[in-house]
Amino acid sequence: MQNKRIVVALGHSALGKTFPEQKEAVKNAAAAIADLVEAKYEIVITHSNGPQVGMIHSAMTEYSRLEPTNTVAPMSICSAMSQGYIGYDLQNEIRTELLNRGIFKPVSTLITQVRVDPFDTAFSYPSKRIGRYMTQEEAKKETAKGNHVVEVEGKGYQRIIAAPRPMNIYEIDAIKALMDAGQIVIAAGGGGIPVLQQGTRLKGASAVIEKDATSACLANELDADTLLLLTGVEKVALHFGTPQETPLDSMTVEEATNYIAQNEFPADSMLPKVEAAVSFASGTEKHKAIITSIDTALAGIQGKTGTVITC
Amino acid sequence: MQNKRIVVALGHSALGKTFPEQKEAVKNAAAAIADLVEAKYEIVITHSNGPQVGMIHSAMTEYSRLEPTNTVAPMSICSAMSQGYIGYDLQNEIRTELLNRGIFKPVSTLITQVRVDPFDTAFSYPSKRIGRYMTQEEAKKETAKGNHVVEVEGKGYQRIIAAPRPMNIYEIDAIKALMDAGQIVIAAGGGGIPVLQQGTRLKGASAVIEKDATSACLANELDADTLLLLTGVEKVALHFGTPQETPLDSMTVEEATNYIAQNEFPADSMLPKVEAAVSFASGTEKHKAIITSIDTALAGIQGKTGTVITC
Repeated sequence: MQNKRIVVALGHSALGKTFPEQKEAVKNAAAAIADLVEAKYEIVITHSNGPQVGMIHSAMTEYSRLEPTNTVAPMSICSAMSQGYIGYDLQNEIRTELLNRGIFKPVSTLITQVRVDPFDTAFSYPSKRIGRYMTQEEAKKETAKGNHVVEVEGKGYQRIIAAPRPMNIYEIDAIKALMDAGQIVIAAGGGGIPVLQQGTRLKGASAVIEKDATSACLANELDADTLLLLTGVEKVALHFGTPQETPLDSMTVEEATNYIAQNEFPADSMLPKVEAAVSFASGTEKHKAIITSIDTALAGIQGKTGTVITC
Repeated sequence: MQNKRIVVALGHSALGKTFPEQKEAVKNAAAAIADLVEAKYEIVITHSNGPQVGMIHSAMTEYSRLEPTNTVAPMSICSAMSQGYIGYDLQNEIRTELLNRGIFKPVSTLITQVRVDPFDTAFSYPSKRIGRYMTQEEAKKETAKGNHVVEVEGKGYQRIIAAPRPMNIYEIDAIKALMDAGQIVIAAGGGGIPVLQQGTRLKGASAVIEKDATSACLANELDADTLLLLTGVEKVALHFGTPQETPLDSMTVEEATNYIAQNEFPADSMLPKVEAAVSFASGTEKHKAIITSIDTALAGIQGKTGTVITC
């Protein structure tokens, strides 16, 4: 029997926010991945990149002030840099964790681009906050450049960009070739570099793609068995953070869709995960999405905990 | 018959120094690669990253001043970022060029680490200049941090780091799997991320590896037929830049070694290429190294121009 294929999506908590934090945080992620490898799953890993791409974007912007011959780095380039940086830390930690368990299995990182639709309404309603907090004066300068800015209460101003939906993954053949060779692949970091297809050319879009949405897209393109969305909580809950909080063992696609309509899930944390789970599970009965904590990844995939979403 | 495998090494001139320069410069590189693809060669591409990694290092250093909670990015992380950035531009331009010629062939970029020896004497004699020019005061601060700095006449001070020899490439299995699948791979950008092996752990080294040396190492590990070193001149020349300038059609490993001993080649341009060619060609009679211009890549590999190095 062929080993089961899973796409594992790592959230912010798996990566931390600074260089030393990330180096420490990836240890947990590596342990979770190694558990899954020991249990004979074939794995593709995706991850978020919010704080990292924000840091890189800020750094490159500072640099452009210092060296006026250089233009500001487009978001697409910052995203490519963040994939290199995070993939490097992640693949190393997984490699070490596997070797410590006596397993040799190549792990590598692919720079990944994802097509977005230029007519996606997200471009009209930018919503994703990126980069450092700015003063009102700095915010005005950003707006003058044509960028969108939002005021964050008590913290200042922050740039916001569009978060369009992922359409397809350009490096899918490379991801498949590495999986077919029995290797572990880190791909589509930060939701992938968003690009617009213009004839034979791909043009970087000033956007970020929700990494959970891209993970579902990738799991669909690979026809994976399971989409495993790892986060900070063991199960999805209704009435989260209230005395009526009710953890869920499972949801059907229909139930999940209803909960979404009832605004059960916060837009900046659980909502994109449940939406991604629905997107993957609704295709076929063979697809299973699981949302659980990074510390219970294996137990989750074994059906012992987590919230399972099926159609 | 199996298609011939070549490792193509792209130099600085193939990439430019700024974001817009690189976007323009990669077009030439893409045309050269597409010529080779049309001629049915299997290709792995390496590239330099001097100006890019310098820019990223400077940007991250500026950022650490702005946000004191963040530490300065280690060179290894800057190198990983530069692989992501350059690979992204390069793979896109090659993809477009191939599609324009009616060829669909996946192109992707792998984040690549290369082992260096902690006892490499290069660590005692740092020689590679990186980052922006500094004032004397800034230079003093760098030295106080334990970093090495050199005065560059008329320009100020610049940080210098070690350039140790490449020992082996950690992601070689991934590179092979993609080649075996008939895909084009961009790997070991900037000579690869230099790492020290400490037990089961890889630790980023504060160093850069000469990309030509890594290209030879990669060509050896892949047992490629040809190492194609693309640069700004069509042929290697003796007495370069003098009235006695003599272009060379070919060199044996022995001749090349003698020329090196006679200081025929400038240390910061042609020397590392000839050394890499010698390193690759000296292994077996089947290995051929070619040094030529990016504009004559195909003619070079067809034996019509360039300098061929064999044993």
